[in-house]
Amino acid sequence: MMEVNMNNMTIIIEGHLIDSGLLSNLLNLIVDENLDYHIDKITVGKTKVETTRAEITIFAEDQESLELVLTKVSPLGAHEKGAVDAVFERAIKDAHAPEGFYSSTNHRTEIYFGSKWNPVQSQRMDAVIIKKDHGFECTKIRDIKKGDFILCGSESVRVYPPAAEMKEDDFAFMTNEVSSERSYDIAVDTIARELKQIKEDGGKCIVVCGPVVVHTGGAPALSALIREGYIQGFLGGNAVAVHDLESFYYGTSLGVDTKTGKPTHGGHNHHMRAINRINGFGSIKKAMEAGDLKEGLMYQVEKSKIPYCLAGSIRDDGPLPETVNDMIEAQSQYAQIIKGADMILMLSSMLHSIGTGNMTPSWVKTVCIDINPAVVTKLADRGSGQAIGIVSDVGLFLNALAGRLNLKL
Amino acid sequence: MMEVNMNNMTIIIEGHLIDSGLLSNLLNLIVDENLDYHIDKITVGKTKVETTRAEITIFAEDQESLELVLTKVSPLGAHEKGAVDAVFERAIKDAHAPEGFYSSTNHRTEIYFGSKWNPVQSQRMDAVIIKKDHGFECTKIRDIKKGDFILCGSESVRVYPPAAEMKEDDFAFMTNEVSSERSYDIAVDTIARELKQIKEDGGKCIVVCGPVVVHTGGAPALSALIREGYIQGFLGGNAVAVHDLESFYYGTSLGVDTKTGKPTHGGHNHHMRAINRINGFGSIKKAMEAGDLKEGLMYQVEKSKIPYCLAGSIRDDGPLPETVNDMIEAQSQYAQIIKGADMILMLSSMLHSIGTGNMTPSWVKTVCIDINPAVVTKLADRGSGQAIGIVSDVGLFLNALAGRLNLKL
Amino acid sequence: MMEVNMNNMTIIIEGHLIDSGLLSNLLNLIVDENLDYHIDKITVGKTKVETTRAEITIFAEDQESLELVLTKVSPLGAHEKGAVDAVFERAIKDAHAPEGFYSSTNHRTEIYFGSKWNPVQSQRMDAVIIKKDHGFECTKIRDIKKGDFILCGSESVRVYPPAAEMKEDDFAFMTNEVSSERSYDIAVDTIARELKQIKEDGGKCIVVCGPVVVHTGGAPALSALIREGYIQGFLGGNAVAVHDLESFYYGTSLGVDTKTGKPTHGGHNHHMRAINRINGFGSIKKAMEAGDLKEGLMYQVEKSKIPYCLAGSIRDDGPLPETVNDMIEAQSQYAQIIKGADMILMLSSMLHSIGTGNMTPSWVKTVCIDINPAVVTKLADRGSGQAIGIVSDVGLFLNALAGRLNLKL
Amino acid sequence: MMEVNMNNMTIIIEGHLIDSGLLSNLLNLIVDENLDYHIDKITVGKTKVETTRAEITIFAEDQESLELVLTKVSPLGAHEKGAVDAVFERAIKDAHAPEGFYSSTNHRTEIYFGSKWNPVQSQRMDAVIIKKDHGFECTKIRDIKKGDFILCGSESVRVYPPAAEMKEDDFAFMTNEVSSERSYDIAVDTIARELKQIKEDGGKCIVVCGPVVVHTGGAPALSALIREGYIQGFLGGNAVAVHDLESFYYGTSLGVDTKTGKPTHGGHNHHMRAINRINGFGSIKKAMEAGDLKEGLMYQVEKSKIPYCLAGSIRDDGPLPETVNDMIEAQSQYAQIIKGADMILMLSSMLHSIGTGNMTPSWVKTVCIDINPAVVTKLADRGSGQAIGIVSDVGLFLNALAGRLNLKL
Repeated sequence: MMEVNMNNMTIIIEGHLIDSGLLSNLLNLIVDENLDYHIDKITVGKTKVETTRAEITIFAEDQESLELVLTKVSPLGAHEKGAVDAVFERAIKDAHAPEGFYSSTNHRTEIYFGSKWNPVQSQRMDAVIIKKDHGFECTKIRDIKKGDFILCGSESVRVYPPAAEMKEDDFAFMTNEVSSERSYDIAVDTIARELKQIKEDGGKCIVVCGPVVVHTGGAPALSALIREGYIQGFLGGNAVAVHDLESFYYGTSLGVDTKTGKPTHGGHNHHMRAINRINGFGSIKKAMEAGDLKEGLMYQVEKSKIPYCLAGSIRDDGPLPETVNDMIEAQSQYAQIIKGADMILMLSSMLHSIGTGNMTPSWVKTVCIDINPAVVTKLADRGSGQAIGIVSDVGLFLNALAGRLNLKL
Repeated sequence: MMEVNMNNMTIIIEGHLIDSGLLSNLLNLIVDENLDYHIDKITVGKTKVETTRAEITIFAEDQESLELVLTKVSPLGAHEKGAVDAVFERAIKDAHAPEGFYSSTNHRTEIYFGSKWNPVQSQRMDAVIIKKDHGFECTKIRDIKKGDFILCGSESVRVYPPAAEMKEDDFAFMTNEVSSERSYDIAVDTIARELKQIKEDGGKCIVVCGPVVVHTGGAPALSALIREGYIQGFLGGNAVAVHDLESFYYGTSLGVDTKTGKPTHGGHNHHMRAINRINGFGSIKKAMEAGDLKEGLMYQVEKSKIPYCLAGSIRDDGPLPETVNDMIEAQSQYAQIIKGADMILMLSSMLHSIGTGNMTPSWVKTVCIDINPAVVTKLADRGSGQAIGIVSDVGLFLNALAGRLNLKL
Repeated sequence: MMEVNMNNMTIIIEGHLIDSGLLSNLLNLIVDENLDYHIDKITVGKTKVETTRAEITIFAEDQESLELVLTKVSPLGAHEKGAVDAVFERAIKDAHAPEGFYSSTNHRTEIYFGSKWNPVQSQRMDAVIIKKDHGFECTKIRDIKKGDFILCGSESVRVYPPAAEMKEDDFAFMTNEVSSERSYDIAVDTIARELKQIKEDGGKCIVVCGPVVVHTGGAPALSALIREGYIQGFLGGNAVAVHDLESFYYGTSLGVDTKTGKPTHGGHNHHMRAINRINGFGSIKKAMEAGDLKEGLMYQVEKSKIPYCLAGSIRDDGPLPETVNDMIEAQSQYAQIIKGADMILMLSSMLHSIGTGNMTPSWVKTVCIDINPAVVTKLADRGSGQAIGIVSDVGLFLNALAGRLNLKL
Repeated sequence: MMEVNMNNMTIIIEGHLIDSGLLSNLLNLIVDENLDYHIDKITVGKTKVETTRAEITIFAEDQESLELVLTKVSPLGAHEKGAVDAVFERAIKDAHAPEGFYSSTNHRTEIYFGSKWNPVQSQRMDAVIIKKDHGFECTKIRDIKKGDFILCGSESVRVYPPAAEMKEDDFAFMTNEVSSERSYDIAVDTIARELKQIKEDGGKCIVVCGPVVVHTGGAPALSALIREGYIQGFLGGNAVAVHDLESFYYGTSLGVDTKTGKPTHGGHNHHMRAINRINGFGSIKKAMEAGDLKEGLMYQVEKSKIPYCLAGSIRDDGPLPETVNDMIEAQSQYAQIIKGADMILMLSSMLHSIGTGNMTPSWVKTVCIDINPAVVTKLADRGSGQAIGIVSDVGLFLNALAGRLNLKL
C-alpha cells in the first residue's frame, strides 16, 4: 500500500502521549484522512513520570494532503521534524487574512521563527497570529489591518493541549463527566477550596452570571462572595441587573414576590419600573450615591469596585444605562476583564458563558452550573482539560457554597 | 340553529364555578362537541364566599350525543337535573365490565341511588364503581368478578374537583407553575411547615424515592426525616435500595466514591456485590440482625418500622430479596401504604411516582422534585389542585429541607 | 366584612367572559389583593354567540389599593365605570417616564380621551403610551423625549386579550399544550395550510431562524419556502449565516461533513474561513455578485430580496459584515420587519425568538419549534392566544413541511 | 519510588492498543490506584494494520492491591503473564456467589482453563461465570444453584472490548457523539442501509418500543417495517399496546384525536375502554380472530408472528392479558428474544431500553432514538462501540426511515 515514490513528511510529538490518549488521537486523525503512517521511532515512557517521544512518517499521494494533515495534527502538539521558520503573509486589506491563514486554538502555542520556538501572546481560539515587533499575538480577524504579517500554514507551530501537560489535582479529577446524578457535596467542597486558594494567592476569579441566579434566590450568596473578596470581575447581561434591581425596589423577581413566592399581579411591570427608576438617576452608580439603591447584587458589584460588563442582547428590555449595546465593544470589555483569570464561574447563562469561553485560554479553570444538562455539556466540552460541569439548581448551589465558606448572608 | 324539536337535557352545576373557571370549562366542553346550550338560570355568587348555581339546557340532534356529553361534564361536577337512581349492570365475566361502564376520576365522587347521594369508597382514577352490600367502591377492571354490579352511565354521578371546593392555603398557591426559575427558599419553607403539621397531627406522609436521591447525596437527609418521624411510608424500586446498600458497604454510588467523588475502577461491580452480600444473609433485615448492615436509608426504613415496598422492574439487577417482582402484588402493596396519606413526596423517580399518582385521590397533597422539568410537569399536572412541582437538585433540596427542620445528619 | 364606609370603585367588563375564563381570572385577581367584591349586575350570555357583561364593585380600605387593582384588572379588558379622560404627564427628561406611567401589554388597547375610546398604534408589550398629534402610540422608555405626554394610571384604558375575542379556527385549537408526545402530522398540516393562505392573501410570514436549522439539515427546505414566496422576512443572528456559508463553501456544518456526517478534522476552522472569505469580498451580496456564493439559505434570502436582519451577540465569531452589532439598531430593524406580520415561525433560536416575541402584538400567530420542551414552553406562553408550540426536530419538521407543500428541494 | 522488594505482577495486553486509546486507559487505571508500573516490552504496531503488544509490570505494597488492579484491567483485555488455570469455587447456597466472584462485562470473554483459552457463552454484563459440563456460561446471581462452580478472581480471564477489535464501517463512525444539532439525513441513510443488509442476510433486528411511537404518529411506519420483514422481534410494555389499541378502536391516543389532533373530551377513558374490550375477548389474538381488531401495531406484530414481550410495570393500567407481570419471567422472555440479534432499535422507551441493554452483548449494534438528550446519552453510553444515539422526534424519524425504504404506509 505504501509506495516508495509517495510524498511523505515526518512529524515529531512528545509528552504524555500514551496515558493522555494523544497518540491515539493523532494516529486516528491520519487514518481518517485515508493516509498511511509508519512509526519510525518511539521511546515509550516506561513509568508514569517519563514522557513518550515519537517520530512518525506520514505518506500521501500528493503534497496537499500532507499539508492538510499537518494543520490537523498541529493542535495536538505535533510539529514537522526539522522545523523551518514560520511563513507570514501580508494582509492585503483590513479584516481579511490571506487564504492559507493559521487559525488558533485556545491552547498554549509556540511559533518556530528565528531558529527557535517563540511563545504566542493573548492566546484565544479562532484568531489569526500576527507577527509584531514585540512578538507574536493572537488577533481576531476583524482586527487585522492591511499590511499585518499573518501566520500561514501550521508547519512551524506547536501547541500544548492541557492533556499533554498533565498536572493532576483535585480539580482535574472532577472534569470527567456531566451528570445530574452526582453528589453535590464534593463539587461544593472542591470549588470552595479553589476559591479560598485563589483569594489567598491574590488570584483572579471571574463570575459569569445569568438572571436565574436572582430568580432562584442565589443573589445574596453571590453578593456575599463578592463582598468577601472571592470574586474579581463580573460578566453578565442587562437581564441579571434588571431583575436584581427589581428585587431590591419591588421585592419581586419576574413579578413573583421573593418573600412569599406568590405572583404579585401587576408585578410583570416591575422590571420596567426598575429600569425607569434607574434612568431617572442616570445610572446604577448615581442611584447608589443618591441613597436610593441600598442593597443587592449590582449594589455589591459597584461597591466592591470590581470591574464588570453588562453585554446587551436582542431580547433586552430597557436597557439599563450601564448595558453595553455595541457587541464589538462588549467583547473587548469582557476580554479585558478575564485577562489573567485563574478561574471562571459560569452561573446559568449560556449566552454569556459561550461568549466568555470563546476568549478564554484552555488552561483557565472553568466551572459551569446550570439545571439543563445540555447547556452544561456544551459549556464544559470546549477542549479544555480544566472544566467542571455541574447539573444543579444554581440558587441552592450558591447557598451551599456560601455555607461552606461560612459567609454571612 | 336551535330547533324546537331537538333532543335536550338539563344539567345542574353548583359551587365556585366562576372564580375556579369551572363554568368556562363546562361550556367549552359543550361547544367542542358541536352542541348548543342555553343557560336557563344562573345565580352568580355575588361575593367571594357565595357559590354559583347554574341550570343549563343542552341541545343535540340525537340522544346519543346528549348521553356522551353527560359523561364528559360529569367529572366537572355537573349532574342531570332531577337525578334518577344509578343503573348497575352485572359483569358477565371476570375482569370485564359492561360496555357502558362509568370510568372513575381521582376526585371525590357521589352516586345518586336510593333517592339520595351516596359517597364512593377507595376513590382512584380509571376504576369502575361497584355496588356492594356496604356501599359503593372503586375497583380496578382486573378485579371485577363475574356477577359484580358495575355502575353504567354518568347520569347519577356527581364529582367534586378540588377547584370547586377551593380551600385556600399556603400550599395551594404554590401549585400554579412549574419552573426552574423560581426561588427554592419558599418551597423549602412551605414543605417544612407542612411536614411539621402532619407530624404534629399524627398524619401520614409517604415518600416515593428514586436512586438519584442516593447519587446526589440526599440519603442522609432523607434518613434523618424518617428517623425523626416525618415519614410514614416508603415507596421505591430495587435500584434505590441497591445503591443505598452499595453506598454503605463499598462507599460508592454507581461506582463513584461518595467521599471523594472519584470513580473507583471496578466500582461498577459494587452494586452486584451488594446484592450478593444481602442474598447471602437472605434479606436486608437479616443483614441488620447479623450486625452486617449498620446504617443508611434502607437501614433507617427497616429500623423505623415504617411500611415500605420496593417494586420490581424490567431493568432490575438482582433483584434484592425484598423486591416485589409481581406487578399486581406491588400495586396492591403501594395502594395499601398510601391509604389515608396526607401528603406524598415524589423524589426523582418518574416511574414509581406515576404508579403512585395513578392510585392517589386528587385531594392528597403531592410534591414532585426532579431536575428534569418535563418529569415535573408530567407529575404535577394530574388533575390535582394539590400538586407542587419543583425543578431542582434533589440532593441539595433534601439537605436544605433537613436544615430547615434542624435535623442532625 | 364589607363595611359601608369602605372605599369602592365600580368596573365594567364585557365579552366572552365565562367561556374564556376571563371572569374567573378577574375575580381571583381581586381576591389575591385581599379585597372584596360585589357583582352588581351580570348579564350572562345565554348561548355561545352572546357575550356577557358584568358590573362589579370592588371594596378596599384605602384608595391606593383600588388604584392598584385597577392597573391589574385593566389588562383583562375591564375599565372603570363612567370612564374619564386619560391623564397624561410630561416627561421631565429623556428616557424617563413619570412614576405612575402605564406599562403596555401586547394586546389590542384603547384609551378613553376626548370622551371616546381611541385606538393605540404600534402595540407592543412593556412600552409607555404617548399622546401625539396624530393619536396614541406605544413607545419604548428609551425613546421617550423630554416633554412627551406619557399616559399615567390605567383608569382610562381598556384592552382586548385574544381570549375575549374568541375567533375559533383550526390554528387556535393547537395552542393548548406543549408536548413532545403529540403527532407531528397534524401540526405539519395546520402550518402548511396557514402558509398557503397567507401567500394567497398577499400576507406576511416572518421566520426567526437559529443555526440548528443548518446543522439538522433543514436549510434546503427553508430555502425552498423562501424561494416559493412563503416567507416575507428573515430574522436571525450571525451564527445561522456563518454556518450556512460554511456549509456552501466547505461542505461542513460545525466542521461536520454535511454529506457523510463524519467530522472533518480541521473542520472546526471552517466557520472562520467562511467569515474571512466573505470579508474578502466585503459582504455576502458582493460574494454573490462575484459569482463566488451560488447557493444556500443566505443566498436565497438575498436573491429573493426579502428584508432580513442578523442581530449580533456577545458570542459571535467574526462577525460577518451584515451583522448588526448595535443592539438598539438591531431591535429597530427587527421591529420594522415584523410590522404587519400575519405569522411568525420561530425555528430553534431562543434568543432571537424572545427578542422578536417582545415586540410582537398578541394577535399575530406564532409557531415555535424546538427540540427542548422548556424553550417551547417559554416561547409559546407569552400571553398570546395564538401561539403553537412544537417540540420536535426542526430539520425533520421543515422537510416534512416542504414535502406537504410539494416543494422541490 | 519503585522498591526491589515490592510485590509485582506482569500483565500482557495485545491489540489495537494505541489508536483505540486502550493503553491510555490501562495506564491511567494503574495510576489511579496509586500503583507504579514499568513497561517491560512494547512492540508498537508501526502501521494501521499492525497490532501492538505490551508487557507491563505493576508494583504494589501488598498482594491485595495487585489482585484488585487485575480485576480492573481485565475488562480492558489484559491478562496476567503466564496465565494459570481459572479457579472456581462452589456456591454454598442458592442465589449467592462466593465473596471473590468475577462479575462479567458485556464484551466477548475467554477463560484460561485446561491450559487453553475457552469462550464464554450467553455473554451479558453483571453476571457470574459458571463452569458447566458443556463449557463456561454467564449466569445471573439469582439463578445460581447451591453447588455451582463459580469463577473467582480475574487472573485467568481475558476480554475483547469492541474498541480493541476495530472493525471500521459506516455504522461505527456515527457512534461518537450525541447531539440534537446533527443532520437527521445521514442517520436515516445509515440505519436504512443496515436494515436492508440485515434483512438480506436473514439476520435479526429487534425493536424496543415506547408509547411515544404511537402518540407521535410513528406507528404506521413501524408497522410497515414489521410487515415488510425488517423486524424480527418486538419488546415493549403494557402502555405501547394499550395506546395502539386505543388508537384503532377510538381513533385517539391519550384521548387526543389522531386525525384532527383535537383532544376529545372523555377521551381520557379510551385507554380503559380498550383494555376492557380486549379483556372481553380474552386476548389481543382472540380479538383479531373474532374480526374485532383489524389494524395497527400490535395487530401487525401478531400477524407477522414475530416473537414479542410486553413487560409489566408499577404504573400500568389494566394491564392487558398479554402483559407479563412477573419481572423475572419478563426478563427471561426479553433475553430469549434478543438472543443472536444483529441490531436493536430503541425507540423512546428508557425503561425497556435499559432493561434490554443490560442483557445485550457489546458487539450488537444498537440505535437509540429519543427527544430527550439525557436519555440518549444514558442509553448510547453503555461501553459499547456499536451504539448510535439520535436526539430526534421519533414519529418524524420513523416516517423518514419508511420513506427511505420506499414502504407503503
